[in-house]
This record gives sequence, structure tokens and C-alpha cells, in this order.
Amino acid sequence: MNRWVPGFTGSTLDRADLVRTNPEQLAALTGSLSARLLVLDGIDPVLDQDGLMVWKSLAEADPSSELIFLGFDDGKPRFAEVRPDLPRGASRSPAIFRMLDIMPPGEAGTYAAARSLIDWHLRHGFCAQCGTRTEMFRGGWGRKCGQCKAEHFPRVDPVVIMLAEHDGKVLIGRQPAYPPRRYSALAGFLEPGESLEEAVARELHEEAGLRASNVRYVVSQPWPFPSSLMMACIADADRDELTIDYTELEDAIWVTREEVQASLDGDPDAPFLPPPPYAIAHTLFRRWLEGGG
Amino acid sequence: MNRWVPGFTGSTLDRADLVRTNPEQLAALTGSLSARLLVLDGIDPVLDQDGLMVWKSLAEADPSSELIFLGFDDGKPRFAEVRPDLPRGASRSPAIFRMLDIMPPGEAGTYAAARSLIDWHLRHGFCAQCGTRTEMFRGGWGRKCGQCKAEHFPRVDPVVIMLAEHDGKVLIGRQPAYPPRRYSALAGFLEPGESLEEAVARELHEEAGLRASNVRYVVSQPWPFPSSLMMACIADADRDELTIDYTELEDAIWVTREEVQASLDGDPDAPFLPPPPYAIAHTLFRRWLEGGG
Repeated sequence: MNRWVPGFTGSTLDRADLVRTNPEQLAALTGSLSARLLVLDGIDPVLDQDGLMVWKSLAEADPSSELIFLGFDDGKPRFAEVRPDLPRGASRSPAIFRMLDIMPPGEAGTYAAARSLIDWHLRHGFCAQCGTRTEMFRGGWGRKCGQCKAEHFPRVDPVVIMLAEHDGKVLIGRQPAYPPRRYSALAGFLEPGESLEEAVARELHEEAGLRASNVRYVVSQPWPFPSSLMMACIADADRDELTIDYTELEDAIWVTREEVQASLDGDPDAPFLPPPPYAIAHTLFRRWLEGGG
Repeated sequence: MNRWVPGFTGSTLDRADLVRTNPEQLAALTGSLSARLLVLDGIDPVLDQDGLMVWKSLAEADPSSELIFLGFDDGKPRFAEVRPDLPRGASRSPAIFRMLDIMPPGEAGTYAAARSLIDWHLRHGFCAQCGTRTEMFRGGWGRKCGQCKAEHFPRVDPVVIMLAEHDGKVLIGRQPAYPPRRYSALAGFLEPGESLEEAVARELHEEAGLRASNVRYVVSQPWPFPSSLMMACIADADRDELTIDYTELEDAIWVTREEVQASLDGDPDAPFLPPPPYAIAHTLFRRWLEGGG
């Protein structure tokens, strides 16, 4: 696996938006002998020896499931099912992170689309506008209310994740839930009424007391836990003195290029354990070392 | 108004996230004599002669309104009210676009936060997970279900807006609802399971039949109709032959630097009318002419 390719990117899925919105074509595809259904264990995938997802015939779908048309891949229509017995707001099992270690990024990208959609349907079965039960439409890329006619679309929640840079060093932080010695880039949800650049500056101020300028976008990835869009940036910080928000972070430290390189190289004397290759923070560290941003 | 500053950016609002999550501090602020309430006409602002929004005392709030704490500005706590008599899913009045012509971008940014939040509350009064009526929490930056305990947060919907570049020209398109002669950059919602770069490539393929590569992020802005995050990019197109999706676009054409410059200069012989200065597509055209991206 190429660790410079952002995790969850490079899916070969053709989302076929014109098919999604065509009920006749959709109906024909669900009857097609070539139609494939994603095999899931709860909301996690089942992988073969190459780290690829296992699919089965669409005929094996649970009759009580709602079906999402993911698109075409390798010439075949691909579906995922929303089984009514799946728990709402499925938690992240440790198993999925072990699987992501071996899944090719593009395969993980296809999975990300399926997982985010399934999770969204499980938690959005009612109309937020009037409280009535809603129905899937657009091949599972939306839900519609028969009562008030509102249309609802799957959420994608933009998140900024960033390295503040000062005097050749970058700031990394640790959340209490991280594995021991793990540090990563600081991150937070973008809010209504702000740009990407403003969200980066706000988060660095809130979490570390820094004033940031010259925000540079670097790279992005989807992160399906449950439906984030991670946008990685680098910004200049006005100082290295920190005022840490301990409700968000357990610790934050400045590290040099040599220290980041040692961490990525797996050096046991490195000051921290880096995020895994499928996380955009990993890609962001690599790009920073290469002089990107 | 500086037309190179992205619209809706530069707000001086301090969102004071630690206050939002502290019910005692919030209660104290709502009782403060300095607390200000945004004056609205429906969901549109009311402007003074300088294009600045008019505020009144918080004591004048409708007792049946829910109150959003926007943050601090000019040392004063700022609130907006969600009046129960406001229409759900308020449509865009022509008046708001005339106002945006004169509002400073930072002022429009504060308004964008208020408008997106108010609109979100109006259309999300029920729990999407179980259908029960929800209550505001976190000073209006979320809603909570007393029944199933689900927490819901305001949506921000990422949108990619882009110029495909080929042989020194860029592609612009026209939607049927645009004013006469208006063209803009192509755009579309980012979907679950894709990166920014993948969304740009998908949209250019869906709408114009192009294969895009080398996607460069340029600049972003919030767009509160109702809650988009517009992310402007430039990408290389593999060809100039177009396959236009006429369900999305009425027309699409390639234009030169000289033609874009003439349009922005207001030349009556220019081939198209550009988007207004407060729209990110305008900023994107300016940045492209300057060699950005």
C-alpha cells in the first residue's frame, strides 16, 4: 500500500447519478443477474485474502432490507442493504481499523460510501421537519417524507485537520481516547457561516491559543465514522507558546521534521506514534516533510 | 468592497465555544443589558446606510422564540431568534441578493452563520432518529432528543465549484434559473465516500463529459442558502469536446482569459455576465486571471 495516497481515495466506483434518479433503470438493475450485494458483518466489511470486500448475489438480500444502489464497479451494479436489525449508530469496532490496515485505499473508498450511507439511513428514518417516517428514494441517496414532502440528503460533515507551523516545527496533539503515545494533527468540525480558512484559524485558537495565518489547503479524504470529509491544511502560527483546551486535548507539543520523520519510520526512540497510513493526518505529515503546503 | 476577498468571509464574530456549552454563562448573558438581538425581516437582515445589520436589545425578543447565541462581537453578546411564525425553508428573496451587493463580506459572514442556523432549526424540529420533537441545546448550535437522547448538529454541506482548464481556456456553464447572459463555474454537492478532488472530477465528468486531473484547491466561502460550504478549485481537462448534461446545465462554453477579464470589467461586448462579487465563482475567476491555482 502506497502510504502517500490518501486513505479512502481512488475508488473505481462509477456512481452513475443518472441511473440513481431513474426508477425504471433502478428496477431493472435490481432484477439483473449480475447485480452484487456487499457482504457485511454488522456494518463492517468481510475481506478476502487480498483485502478486497466480499460480494454476493443481490438475490440473497434480506427481503425486509432497504437497498442502496452504490453504482457500477467492474461492469456490475453494486448494492448495499440497510437491514432493519442493524443497530442504530453502529459504534466503531476495533476490527474495522485492523481491516483498514490491509484494504487498498480505493477499496476503502467504496466501503466508505456504503458505510456512511447505511449509517445515515439507520439514524435518519424520520422526517426532521415533521416527525413522520420517511422512505428511501434516489436509489438510497436520499429520503423523502410522504407527509410534508421534505427531501433529505445524506450528510457529509466537513472537518478541518491542520498542522500549525512555527519556526520549522509543527504542533501535534493527543486526545484522551488515543492509543498510548499516539499524537496527530489537531482537528475540528467546520461550522455554519465560516470558510475552510476561518475554521482552521478558529480551531487553532480554541484548542491551542494560537493566532494562525496563511492557511494552505493540502489534501482531503472521506472518513466514514460516520460521515466526515477531512480537509488537511497547514497554517503559520504567530508564536509557540500554547494555551491548551484540556476539554479537547490531553496534550499538545511542537515537533521537528526529524522527529516526525523518525515517528513515520517507526523509530522506537521517536517522540510519538503517528496516525495510521489510512488517516489523512499521516498523509499530511508526509506532505509536510516533502515541503508541501 | 474589495472584490478579491471571498464573500461571506472576515466576520469579527467570536463564537466563544466554551460559553456555548456552559448553561450558567449562557443564562447570565441572556440577562445581560448589553446583549443584542439581530433584527430580521422574515429571515433577511435589516441594513443601515453603511450596509451593516441592525440589532436591538435582547429584551425585545418574542417570548415564544428560541434563542441562538451567535457569539461576541464588539464586546457584546449577540443573539438571533428562531420565531415560531417564520416559514419553514424560507425561500431566497430577491431582496437578500440586493443587500449582499452592499454588505461588507465580514458582515455577510456573521449573517451567514445566523441565517444557516435559523433555517436549520426551522427545518429540523424533530428527531431524525425517532420522530420526537427536539429541544435546542448548546446555545442553539445543536438540538437534542429527550426521547432517544440523540444529539443533532447543524448541517454544513460541502459543495465543489470548479473551472476545468484546457489549452488556456476555462469552462463555464449556465443553469436555466440564472439571470439572462449569466454564466458561472460548474458546481455540485460532494457525496459520502469521496474526497474533494474526486468530487471535482466526478462533477466535471457528469456535467460536461470531461476527464479531470491535477485538481488544485483555490479558495472557499460559506453560502447560506441554506448551508453550503463552497470550495473552489481548478482542474486540468483532457479535452475541450463537451458532453453536456442538459438536466443540470442549459449551456457550457470555453472562454479565454481576455473574455473572462472583459466580463469582470463590465465590458458590454463580453461573452457573458459574471457572477456577483460576493459569490466564490467571482473570486475564482479573479484568482485564475492572477495565475492562482
